[in-house]
Amino acid sequence: MPKLTPDEKQPGMTSLEPIEWSQGAIRLLDQTRLPWEEVFLELRTPQEVVQAIREMRVRGAPAIGVTAAYGMALAAGSLGKGGRASLLVSLRAASREMAAARPTAVNLRWAVERMMRAAEKVAPDGDMGASLLAEAQLVHRETLESDLRMAALGALLIQPGSTVLTHCNTGALATGGYGTALGVIRRAWEEGRVKGVVATETRPWLQGARLTTWELTRLGIPFTLIVDSAAGYLMSRGSVQCAIVGADRIAANGDVANKIGTCSLAMLARENGIPFYVAAPFSTVDMSTASGEDIPIEERPSEEVTHIRGTPTALEGTPVRNFAFDVTPSRYIGAIITDRGVVRAPYEESLRRLVGSG
Amino acid sequence: MPKLTPDEKQPGMTSLEPIEWSQGAIRLLDQTRLPWEEVFLELRTPQEVVQAIREMRVRGAPAIGVTAAYGMALAAGSLGKGGRASLLVSLRAASREMAAARPTAVNLRWAVERMMRAAEKVAPDGDMGASLLAEAQLVHRETLESDLRMAALGALLIQPGSTVLTHCNTGALATGGYGTALGVIRRAWEEGRVKGVVATETRPWLQGARLTTWELTRLGIPFTLIVDSAAGYLMSRGSVQCAIVGADRIAANGDVANKIGTCSLAMLARENGIPFYVAAPFSTVDMSTASGEDIPIEERPSEEVTHIRGTPTALEGTPVRNFAFDVTPSRYIGAIITDRGVVRAPYEESLRRLVGSG
Repeated sequence: MPKLTPDEKQPGMTSLEPIEWSQGAIRLLDQTRLPWEEVFLELRTPQEVVQAIREMRVRGAPAIGVTAAYGMALAAGSLGKGGRASLLVSLRAASREMAAARPTAVNLRWAVERMMRAAEKVAPDGDMGASLLAEAQLVHRETLESDLRMAALGALLIQPGSTVLTHCNTGALATGGYGTALGVIRRAWEEGRVKGVVATETRPWLQGARLTTWELTRLGIPFTLIVDSAAGYLMSRGSVQCAIVGADRIAANGDVANKIGTCSLAMLARENGIPFYVAAPFSTVDMSTASGEDIPIEERPSEEVTHIRGTPTALEGTPVRNFAFDVTPSRYIGAIITDRGVVRAPYEESLRRLVGSG
Repeated sequence: MPKLTPDEKQPGMTSLEPIEWSQGAIRLLDQTRLPWEEVFLELRTPQEVVQAIREMRVRGAPAIGVTAAYGMALAAGSLGKGGRASLLVSLRAASREMAAARPTAVNLRWAVERMMRAAEKVAPDGDMGASLLAEAQLVHRETLESDLRMAALGALLIQPGSTVLTHCNTGALATGGYGTALGVIRRAWEEGRVKGVVATETRPWLQGARLTTWELTRLGIPFTLIVDSAAGYLMSRGSVQCAIVGADRIAANGDVANKIGTCSLAMLARENGIPFYVAAPFSTVDMSTASGEDIPIEERPSEEVTHIRGTPTALEGTPVRNFAFDVTPSRYIGAIITDRGVVRAPYEESLRRLVGSG
């Protein structure tokens, strides 16, 4: 596993700080208002954190995890100095509410559970609030380090001169660090391997059109925006050499839950002989989920499909299926790039090998 | 070839009249304002017709053909009673402008050329305006008859109990008759073969979200609207048994130019073992175009991707590739349903066999 150089640890490298702890509050860049407005929210209660996650003001599995970790610190800080047992009971209640804010991302659950374990380790006379804040800051720092490791490992998979297609947003906005799939692209661009990026707009939430284009513009990486449905045609014309996406949950057999549209892209890549990669921290891997069939897929309100930013695109009340995510069977995935190493099929074995290596 | 029953010839069957000739003008349902407003335009000059086609107030290859035919009648009517040779020269100029309004659809060119041939046959002392109006009405009537033949032939390909996925809009709105792919679905529904329809929203113009849902609602056919990128996931879950789309141009080898996203759907259908059909009148087949590589693909303004109905979805000036159509290689197409019969691979031969059978 590559070691981080001191330079790579500079948070300045992320060139934007979508999540920051500042004076007893979470300073959160409201992603629903990008790219038109850069508005920061100040979250001071765990309830506000749950609401921000549910309303997708922060999105991207790792960024949700970091935010939830700070949210648990806020919860601990608000509990006062009661008895340890009652503090833990209250904290457990807060953790359940936090974990339920979005059902699919495993990082959310993972971060909340890690915070609970940290809470259980605080000495009876210890400062629960201070301890959990320190743990949340560690989660945040480790996310950046993990992103940088994925970027270094993943960049090597991209053939020089490639135009790389990506879906949704998987950059610094999505992790609070350097990014997962977009971090790989960013590193590969710095290494001179990437000719350009094709960003899918990513209906219904337009994370590609709004967020990925915003990040790529800031990073100076050339790109083209397309509607989601154009991916197959571009691949068939030879305009794309590689596709790379993030993940919200990875099952033990390598099946990947990610933004709706991922499964289509993976199948299209296969049909066109284009490598398809997934980049995600190992915390996204859920060994207790046997396969993609066991991953709950969040369905969201129809208004997200029948309206775009308040403008109707179909008649009110049109029957809609609005899956927020889909499941890509692992047979379509060329490699999964994690912060613990790059794994390939058979995933059941290769993922299990990494379990103890954290 | 099935014969039309008298009932099937009733224009009332179309349940809407998106294109009508009325008192010296084309009465055209403005499709850019559906489903929210049912506004009819009255086009009185060939220039207005060109503009309406270019602005996509009428869209769908056969409907564009019918509109252009009436547009040629308007052109002939406006020329007065000059000498036959000079009339034909003026008419030829109008036909060129008309044919250039949209570059990909072959029906437009086909309709305009048919009108020119009719004009050349008008006797020296004949009424050019009246003759071309009669020819345009014939084009319109034949379009409805052709739609009904496709519907009858195509419905037989749909297995009872199927949920059928379709893309863009290919109903009465798209032809001025009964519809192509949606006409097949409509007939199959009447025959009790269709359980429901999955309509893709069809970015960037949202013909699926706006027009197909509007037609299906009027017809009482149950449906679900999805974002384009969800198609692969629904197919992989077994939620779709068949996909059927229209065509804007079919090359001699069976390659099909159709709405952007068609190529992705065809590849996804193949990958998931789902039959993929194309329904289009034989006038869509262009035997002078050898393969899909020879079909010019219209690229439209980036604003169609960076805005939806005036609402920005990305920053102004974002680099975009906005292909209006794509090309689906014929190897992905299970059958092409035409008004002259259903053809299958090898398409070069099967299409050629139909050339003389009109």
